Amino acid sequence: MAPGEAIECLAAVAWNAKVPLSIELVEVLPPKAGEVRVKMFATAVCHTDAYTLDGLDSEGVFPAILGHEGSGTVESVGEGVTSVQPGDVVIPLYTAECKECKFCKSRKSNLCSSIRAFTGKGLMKDGTVRFRCKGQDIYHYMGTSTFSEYTVIHEVACAKIRPDAPMEKVCLLGCGVTTGIGAVLNTSNVEEGATVGVFGCGAVGLSVIQGAVLAKASRVFAIDLNPTKFDLAKTMGATDCVNPLDYSKPIQEVLVELTDGGLDYTFECIGRTETMRAALEACHKGWGESCIIGVAGAGEEIQTKPFQLVTGRVWRGTAFGGYKGRSQLSGLVDQYMEGSSIKLDELITGTYKLEELNTAFDVLHEGKAIRSVIIF
Amino acid sequence: MAPGEAIECLAAVAWNAKVPLSIELVEVLPPKAGEVRVKMFATAVCHTDAYTLDGLDSEGVFPAILGHEGSGTVESVGEGVTSVQPGDVVIPLYTAECKECKFCKSRKSNLCSSIRAFTGKGLMKDGTVRFRCKGQDIYHYMGTSTFSEYTVIHEVACAKIRPDAPMEKVCLLGCGVTTGIGAVLNTSNVEEGATVGVFGCGAVGLSVIQGAVLAKASRVFAIDLNPTKFDLAKTMGATDCVNPLDYSKPIQEVLVELTDGGLDYTFECIGRTETMRAALEACHKGWGESCIIGVAGAGEEIQTKPFQLVTGRVWRGTAFGGYKGRSQLSGLVDQYMEGSSIKLDELITGTYKLEELNTAFDVLHEGKAIRSVIIF
Repeated sequence: MAPGEAIECLAAVAWNAKVPLSIELVEVLPPKAGEVRVKMFATAVCHTDAYTLDGLDSEGVFPAILGHEGSGTVESVGEGVTSVQPGDVVIPLYTAECKECKFCKSRKSNLCSSIRAFTGKGLMKDGTVRFRCKGQDIYHYMGTSTFSEYTVIHEVACAKIRPDAPMEKVCLLGCGVTTGIGAVLNTSNVEEGATVGVFGCGAVGLSVIQGAVLAKASRVFAIDLNPTKFDLAKTMGATDCVNPLDYSKPIQEVLVELTDGGLDYTFECIGRTETMRAALEACHKGWGESCIIGVAGAGEEIQTKPFQLVTGRVWRGTAFGGYKGRSQLSGLVDQYMEGSSIKLDELITGTYKLEELNTAFDVLHEGKAIRSVIIF
Repeated sequence: MAPGEAIECLAAVAWNAKVPLSIELVEVLPPKAGEVRVKMFATAVCHTDAYTLDGLDSEGVFPAILGHEGSGTVESVGEGVTSVQPGDVVIPLYTAECKECKFCKSRKSNLCSSIRAFTGKGLMKDGTVRFRCKGQDIYHYMGTSTFSEYTVIHEVACAKIRPDAPMEKVCLLGCGVTTGIGAVLNTSNVEEGATVGVFGCGAVGLSVIQGAVLAKASRVFAIDLNPTKFDLAKTMGATDCVNPLDYSKPIQEVLVELTDGGLDYTFECIGRTETMRAALEACHKGWGESCIIGVAGAGEEIQTKPFQLVTGRVWRGTAFGGYKGRSQLSGLVDQYMEGSSIKLDELITGTYKLEELNTAFDVLHEGKAIRSVIIF
């Protein structure tokens, strides 16, 4: 097709919460100024997609095209786009990087504010959408909408990576793996010899484990109610696996006993507020730091005794592992390509066609998948 | 008296919670191995003493001799004591420093574990007490019991300072001032140019303000329901004073608006869990850090949405400002002696005799005192 025209292609449309996705023929409008149209190559399915589809996301709007962990090539660019050009391999970013806002200018934050107010509402920055189906506007999702053969994203949400990267693998760097590794290396800045506890052994938790290995942690505890995940946790580098169901005491007390006072760093990778509390209270007095990664249900709150903090524990959180995507994601891809320090292949438990996306969600809900990858 | 004998002297005994202190003739037994008997010169009255006397402290035991912010000279030392000798000027430490436990050896913590299990129960490390009155054992308090003409403390809780320091002033470094300054400089590590919010303008809050000045903060917000405290807050270095009663919105929303997104650092110096939440939520997205200093009532819990942390805010706490007392307190005394960088005199709003201690408590409860100093 000529540049500037709409593309007709297949996409998985979420017509509403709590109903299966429909594979539909959609129209993907051309990118406007500052926008990029991407031909998707692969996308993984993340719990956050399921969270929104299940109606738990207070920001969720429908109908929408979900998906936020993908890879593809630039098909065309809108006016003024200079950082990418057609043919470039990119990973769409749900955490943009404009390099100009106060968050981008701060070394402490990756929470770029340039488009968040719009992408949070399912819109592009001009307040409109680029998807149409059956005569209706279809909302974007997280500024990425990777469950479509083509998508339109903002230039500031477009991380260019090397062209020889296997796109069906590095799509995982679009969310879970980067979040887990970054939580350890950027947000919590775990130091050599530290002890680490990881609550939840999904893709994020397993990537916290690999981050802890990169940080040279001395002991890495994998904590999960589902012991079938422990083999992979050990493959990723866990030294100890703990199933809370094996104990009658609260898991925080168990861990404090097992570690002579508590862990140096813990990470909550589930999204349960009770687990967030346990993760904090499993930390060592005086210096233990707990990082929240999981997304809790709308309206849920965390709670603890202030004494936990007054006696030296620190409670923090992370989004996208603190990584500034356009500046730093290509480096993670390089690291993956250069050897074994970043593990992606181990996390991919199945590949599917777009038409099988609902099956991939079913497998996720059954706890049988770490990452299912859709290859377009 | 000969060394090794009991001393009879006056002390304020708290026979029970919620009753006024009684000035009594007490027996102060000689120091045992590793202990130091101190002739108190001055002691200030802190809200924590009132908190315990009011029966709010879950660790509170009675009858006890309260008081933890004092100064004095070593009268005699027990067997094996080498770091101080009779005549040395000292500040008793409720946060000890043994230099040998894992907390003392960590650069991250000042929560020495050598005697805490005992002092928390009102005992010396051998499980007994050094105070007797009317034939009864009297419990210690916080390992200090400064409301007595003589007290016995552990050597590890004995910070030696220069002999020319005015003891009636530097006693304030035994708790509140050190806590406030250290929260800024040690625990939160506030950097030049940062914005700071201080909830509560008592001695601790005012010392957070002076800490923020030492850290070269660009703006320092003093927040208090009692506007009579704002003059002193400004003297200490506050640039903006905010009374939550002047607004209909929650104070965190007010502060976020006043600061274009929130404060870089906040400090809760009151002990109210609702204020702790407000202090966290008044922080800037992406990097704001809130530090809990105030002591909440037994059983009370802090609460917030995890989203507050996931979007980059950090929640921490401090005890004694992170200072390792025996190593670092003399440096603060030096700093006070050398010039105007540490303000103590401004915080002393009255001096009293031991016999007037209940009056000092009344003035504290009436919100009229910053620090009342008892001079023996």
